[in-house]
Amino acid sequence: MLPDLTDLTTLRDLMRDAPCADAAARQAAQERNGQLTKPPGALGRLEDLAIWYAGWRGNGRPTITTPQVIVFAGNHGVTAQGVSAFPAEVTVQMVANFQHGGAAINQLARAAGARMDVHALDLDRPTADFTQGPAMSEADLLAALRVGWAAVDADADLLVVGEMGIGNTTSAAAICHALFGGAAEDWTGRGTGVDDAGLQVKTRVVAEGVARNGGGALDGLQILARLGGREIAAMAGAIAAARMLRIPVILDGFICGAAAACLQQLNSSALDHAVAGHQSAEGAHRDLLTRLGKEPLLALNLRLGEGSGAALAISILKGAVACHSGMATFAEAGVAGSA
Amino acid sequence: MLPDLTDLTTLRDLMRDAPCADAAARQAAQERNGQLTKPPGALGRLEDLAIWYAGWRGNGRPTITTPQVIVFAGNHGVTAQGVSAFPAEVTVQMVANFQHGGAAINQLARAAGARMDVHALDLDRPTADFTQGPAMSEADLLAALRVGWAAVDADADLLVVGEMGIGNTTSAAAICHALFGGAAEDWTGRGTGVDDAGLQVKTRVVAEGVARNGGGALDGLQILARLGGREIAAMAGAIAAARMLRIPVILDGFICGAAAACLQQLNSSALDHAVAGHQSAEGAHRDLLTRLGKEPLLALNLRLGEGSGAALAISILKGAVACHSGMATFAEAGVAGSA
Repeated sequence: MLPDLTDLTTLRDLMRDAPCADAAARQAAQERNGQLTKPPGALGRLEDLAIWYAGWRGNGRPTITTPQVIVFAGNHGVTAQGVSAFPAEVTVQMVANFQHGGAAINQLARAAGARMDVHALDLDRPTADFTQGPAMSEADLLAALRVGWAAVDADADLLVVGEMGIGNTTSAAAICHALFGGAAEDWTGRGTGVDDAGLQVKTRVVAEGVARNGGGALDGLQILARLGGREIAAMAGAIAAARMLRIPVILDGFICGAAAACLQQLNSSALDHAVAGHQSAEGAHRDLLTRLGKEPLLALNLRLGEGSGAALAISILKGAVACHSGMATFAEAGVAGSA
Repeated sequence: MLPDLTDLTTLRDLMRDAPCADAAARQAAQERNGQLTKPPGALGRLEDLAIWYAGWRGNGRPTITTPQVIVFAGNHGVTAQGVSAFPAEVTVQMVANFQHGGAAINQLARAAGARMDVHALDLDRPTADFTQGPAMSEADLLAALRVGWAAVDADADLLVVGEMGIGNTTSAAAICHALFGGAAEDWTGRGTGVDDAGLQVKTRVVAEGVARNGGGALDGLQILARLGGREIAAMAGAIAAARMLRIPVILDGFICGAAAACLQQLNSSALDHAVAGHQSAEGAHRDLLTRLGKEPLLALNLRLGEGSGAALAISILKGAVACHSGMATFAEAGVAGSA
């Protein structure tokens, strides 16, 4: 069902002609929504969510039963520049924590009734320090995209992609700076918690990385190769695969958003199958969401990554769909409509 | 365990000396939170929620397994003034819908793994039209408070109270106007969806009700009797009972907030065991939350009542507590801390 991702051009072509939501299912959902036992519009955003979800699933009265959370992990050469409050070894340690069920995302995926998979990408082979040259070759990018592409369960009915990678808010900031312009400080934040001096270093590193790699008319995949990380590329690959499979996606925070933005650069409607799960505490995430045209479902000051904010939002979407598909209509319940 | 609510003075006394959170459990939770495998503060509000919940449950590593949703329904004499877009018969029709599982709150309670109970309070005996005199006698108020008081399951570990009652945003607006002052229009909104003319009528009715009933130094229970409804009083009774039982409460929207505000008038810390589940689309709810000192967990433009927004927030609190109690510590997982 999912075509083989043989090269980057294939992905560019697939995203350009990406499949759309089912208009008939969307219409059926809209009609059903108007008949449910509630004042018109009283469920607010839940109504929009349910109709959106129905369209992508091609079912006017859908259910959510098999959500999938995938966490991708990668290491970043740019950590040599001292951009994180944590040592790079934490990436592999946290992967073990994911595998043993001890991380936040394990608890949140379980609470949301989601299957969770973990993919560690060449942790012993960090990307190159992008202040010195491209983070990845195009072959490395393709390999990472293919990991994400293959990781999506075709039977999933909802996808969350998360990440772990010490140094990856630096990479995400550089991607955003290259994609959207502005100044390096507009896109650089404290990540896991660097102090003022660390933030200054990080901002300089983002500026240098973009100055070194960002020149010319690069597309989203070229920027992803030069400034990204393997886990960020894998997230992009998974989000793209979900689009091909018409699996709705809940985006997580800043790093996930940067991955998604690389796809959006290929096609402005490439993220129509995605909603923003939350607004992160990472400062630039608000601006990034604006660029993506997404209003976050939650804003609880999370800045953990791992897919945590998006996993928390699964329950919101489940609630929306449960109301839509489970509620009685005015006719069924014998309830009078508004005057 | 719960004392008998023999009269209103008993409730006033109980609220004045209401039990507090367990400081030792709170402290234990705070310490545990600092050891979990995440950067300090990275789970944002989820961390505060888990610590708050732990304090009220007297357990530094709690779980949420038996949440209870209670929906109270009542009828309002003030509907004779044409304050709602829906006819008063809808209250009893919606109660049947709750009982048959067809309403939004049924789906949301089920999705959150909560038990749901419905209490219809004398639907064939609406409160009096408060533009003509007090909505309820003190005896009627006590009876309604006692329904809420008795409805809370002592074994519940989380409580949501919701309501159904055509006309009850008018009653809630009048309560807020009497409690907090300002102008009638500051507290009056569109409820289930009245048009401009309806809003004008509603605002006049609120102003008249408060002018007629709100004079003098009334306390929260007196205001509740004169301007409230049976379902609003029952909500207040349930929130008060939960406090006695140290069961944390998630407040719903504007009407639930008005009920809670009557308790807060008796004791400024009477709602310390409660969080605000969401910010409703009903305009005055934002101001009411400010008066209650509560920051909402969700803001999804809901304006349905029934407990819907609070029920949706159960999953957020469950996620917070699942992270807190389920995550590994740095020591357990062998993960390095920040530099």
